[in-house]
Amino acid sequence: MDKTFRAIDRQAWRQDRVSNGSRSLAEETALALTYNGGTYAVMMGTPGDLEDFAIGFSLNAGIIQSVDGVESLDIVHLEDGVDLRIWLPPVQAAKLGQRRRNMAGPTGCGLCGVDSIAEALVAPATVGCGRCFSPEQIVAAMHSIQALQTINVATRAVHAAAFWTPEHGIVALREDVGRHNALDKLTGALARGHVAAVDGMVLLTSRVSIEMVQKVASIGAPVMVAISAPTTLAVRTAEAAGITLAAIARDDGFEVFTHPHRIAAGA
Amino acid sequence: MDKTFRAIDRQAWRQDRVSNGSRSLAEETALALTYNGGTYAVMMGTPGDLEDFAIGFSLNAGIIQSVDGVESLDIVHLEDGVDLRIWLPPVQAAKLGQRRRNMAGPTGCGLCGVDSIAEALVAPATVGCGRCFSPEQIVAAMHSIQALQTINVATRAVHAAAFWTPEHGIVALREDVGRHNALDKLTGALARGHVAAVDGMVLLTSRVSIEMVQKVASIGAPVMVAISAPTTLAVRTAEAAGITLAAIARDDGFEVFTHPHRIAAGA
Repeated sequence: MDKTFRAIDRQAWRQDRVSNGSRSLAEETALALTYNGGTYAVMMGTPGDLEDFAIGFSLNAGIIQSVDGVESLDIVHLEDGVDLRIWLPPVQAAKLGQRRRNMAGPTGCGLCGVDSIAEALVAPATVGCGRCFSPEQIVAAMHSIQALQTINVATRAVHAAAFWTPEHGIVALREDVGRHNALDKLTGALARGHVAAVDGMVLLTSRVSIEMVQKVASIGAPVMVAISAPTTLAVRTAEAAGITLAAIARDDGFEVFTHPHRIAAGA
Repeated sequence: MDKTFRAIDRQAWRQDRVSNGSRSLAEETALALTYNGGTYAVMMGTPGDLEDFAIGFSLNAGIIQSVDGVESLDIVHLEDGVDLRIWLPPVQAAKLGQRRRNMAGPTGCGLCGVDSIAEALVAPATVGCGRCFSPEQIVAAMHSIQALQTINVATRAVHAAAFWTPEHGIVALREDVGRHNALDKLTGALARGHVAAVDGMVLLTSRVSIEMVQKVASIGAPVMVAISAPTTLAVRTAEAAGITLAAIARDDGFEVFTHPHRIAAGA
């Protein structure tokens, strides 16, 4: 198992005094996503829960439709990083190769940004009806993740994504130096555990940009709650996907930007 | 000029009371980077300082070597985003097209992650000797950026990257919902202003991952200071690039992880 954090020597200048010592910093490693022998992307991330990351990234990028879409997965540790070698059935691998060649080719149309922007903003799936949660449940759920963020307790510098249900509390929590990676890892963990995302809430320690909403829609969770603020585009995307987006969640409450009907006192 | 933030209606649940109102949220827009008619990437970012972003992204991605490497730049507003249409001399555009086709092709070598990881971790340029700064200068410089973060003052949800010299104070400050974008914008602003980065410090409101160090090395600034913590890989990369990396900068001081010789009392 790779280390996810490490003590590093440093010199502190605080209140006019210099002192030497060390601090626990989060590890960051190059994670290559390789499909049938061709590398699709290299992400910088925390070297833990890599099976979850490989599956969740593949799901959220639309490369596979379910966890069964992967034939096999090898986690290969290299000197400078980790190669996540994912094997798809030949038909799916051929489709992926064609998609990448289409993306790489200069088309010379003079309007190429139009297609590429449309692809980045493709409307996510609409989530299911879901259920209602009380404000007390939301505050308690967000509070409960703090002690479970083991890497963050050591480093104060990594994000978490978690999934909560009234029946089970925190079902899964994943951490990463990148908030997108943390949510990809959670996606993979839920898919591999065959968890029905419609029954609970996704909890995030980060801000909410459009891609975080797109991933939650891909997971199929009807409610997401974040510690920090959303962007305007994230709000529009959550509105379109039917997701209840709560944010700026603190111990004293939170703010709801879309579909407030799933939050009700006494739910 | 695009809006960089906007008031959005929301429902607040705070201390057992529900109230309606609005909150200023940061805008987020799809920004396509299109070279000679072919789209290279779509980044989600704040729609401001887009000329700086186009130049800085191109420099930090190694697509151009100086601001003179761009023949012309058109900022084209589309319905769903902005297309940054950059025109390179034909020889450079052909090289870029070949590089992208090489990246997209499945090579079937079975070791593809090795090359891709090596490319992600390519050793940055070593920065120049630079000069010394006192701890008081560092604390004062970091303090001075707060009031200049106009989007963040309104939204509390965007990052800033700034450049400071003893002679001029804050020379440039750029904001974005993405910390990488903010640093790309600063890179472009300094290049377009022909600022000698060796004379000052880059200041960041964010955490420091490897890519932030790679960009600062590309800028050529010998000192970088961040509010939050670095990763271990960021520390190793700053060590190799000769960059003085200070982080966890607060009003009472900061911590230095690499090359502390550029920080001296009374400098």
